[in-house]
Formats: sequence, structure tokens, C-alpha cells
Amino acid sequence: MINEPKQPVDLKTALSTFEALWSPRIVTRVNDYDVRIAKVAGEHVWHVHENTDEFFLVLEGELRIALREPGPGGERTVVLPRGSVFVVPRGVEHKPSSAEGASIMMFEPTGTPTVGDRHDPVPGHIDATTGHALGS
Amino acid sequence: MINEPKQPVDLKTALSTFEALWSPRIVTRVNDYDVRIAKVAGEHVWHVHENTDEFFLVLEGELRIALREPGPGGERTVVLPRGSVFVVPRGVEHKPSSAEGASIMMFEPTGTPTVGDRHDPVPGHIDATTGHALGS
Repeated sequence: MINEPKQPVDLKTALSTFEALWSPRIVTRVNDYDVRIAKVAGEHVWHVHENTDEFFLVLEGELRIALREPGPGGERTVVLPRGSVFVVPRGVEHKPSSAEGASIMMFEPTGTPTVGDRHDPVPGHIDATTGHALGS
Repeated sequence: MINEPKQPVDLKTALSTFEALWSPRIVTRVNDYDVRIAKVAGEHVWHVHENTDEFFLVLEGELRIALREPGPGGERTVVLPRGSVFVVPRGVEHKPSSAEGASIMMFEPTGTPTVGDRHDPVPGHIDATTGHALGS
């Protein structure tokens, strides 16, 4: 059953099974949500998820998320060191990046595309996907 | 807005703000889900969430989760070292424990009670709650 991993999953071991950047693997599912892990480096693409928040936890390295929030604030960037979490609210344009590289964990509804519902042109190094099975 | 923590939350710093065991703090929300952290030591109580899976990530220490699964398998215990994840499927009776103590992160629908929908008598050291605000 898809919701029933028989054994715990060690995230470091799971991360060691792939090298692709910006190409999340689905570690497990919680109801109709995915738990995804990804290796990242360089810049993602500006995109927005219209109908869902997106949770980030930094497992290794440092992640930055540029945000274009409504209101007078305009654009800002939050910095997530290892061990910190952040939720990008639905409807907020954002662009993750990591100059030195990072490993991250995400929660989001199953089927959520990595490039959101609207996005800038997707560069070749970004995998437009709803996540891959671990080991695939 | 409840879904909009203005800044990232460092989990170690968040964990340092409370000492209570088995008494989860809500770090942030993702749609209608909570991200909760807890310090644990000793035994929780046998309980079941009839309508939701429950996600665990071990941040520090080691967590064990005893499971009473349907079928001939009967009772078993999964061991989660630091950095590993496990999802208890809905409807499965379970009892977390940690002999040496651990810090954990959980992901579950907002309003999910720590002692589930059915449970053994709740001992005094277990906080029957749907989670507390961080800093409360």
C-alpha cells in the first residue's frame, strides 16, 4: 500500500541513491500529501502554486527562497540554514536557490508540479515533474 | 496570517524554547496540516488515528514506534534513528517510545489529537492536546 512504507527510511541513505539536481524523489506519502527530498544547486525558476502552500526543511547546506509577496514589500529573500523550515504560502511567486548546494525535504499535495501552475520559461537544468519514485 | 511565518524557523532554536515531554508545539502550517515538534522520552500510550496517517521525522536521538498491524503479523516495533522518517498508516494502533529521549517533527492534519481517536488510559506524563503554539 502506498501509505505503508514497511520500514523507516533514512533520509541520508535515500539522498545517496540519486544525483540529479532539482528533481525530487517521493520518500513517502501522508494521506494525499507527498514527502519529497531533492538535491539542489544554483537557481530554480520563478513559479507559483496557486492552490497550495509548500513546506521546506533544509537537511544539508543552505537554501534561499526569493519571494514576491503581495503588498508594498515587493521582493525579498529568506535564508534557510540547515535544520530550518519555511512555508511558502499559496499564491506567492518564489524562486529557490542554493549557491553552494543543499538537500531539502518538502511536503506538498501529491501531484504538485515542481514548476507550479505558472512559471518563467523552464531552463534545461530544472526537472518539471510531480516527483519521482525513490529508486527510479 | 496563519500560513505565513515571516521568517524561517530554526528547529533547534524552536526546540530550545520548551522542555515539556510528549507535548507538541506547532511550528508552522501547510494548508490544513500542522508541522509539529516534540521532545519525547519514555513511553507514549497505545492509540489510533482512525482517519489520518501520521508522519514522523527524528531530529535528535532515536524513536521507536510499536505497531499493531492488521493481519497475521501482529505487533512489531520500528526503530527510527536520527534523520529517518516513518508514516504510521491511518487505523493502525501505535505507541511511540524513546528510552534515551528524542526530538521529533510530525506532519498531520490540524486538530489531530496526540492520543488519537481511541487510546488506552492516558498516563499523567502524556499531554492530550492538538498541539500548542510555539512560545506558549
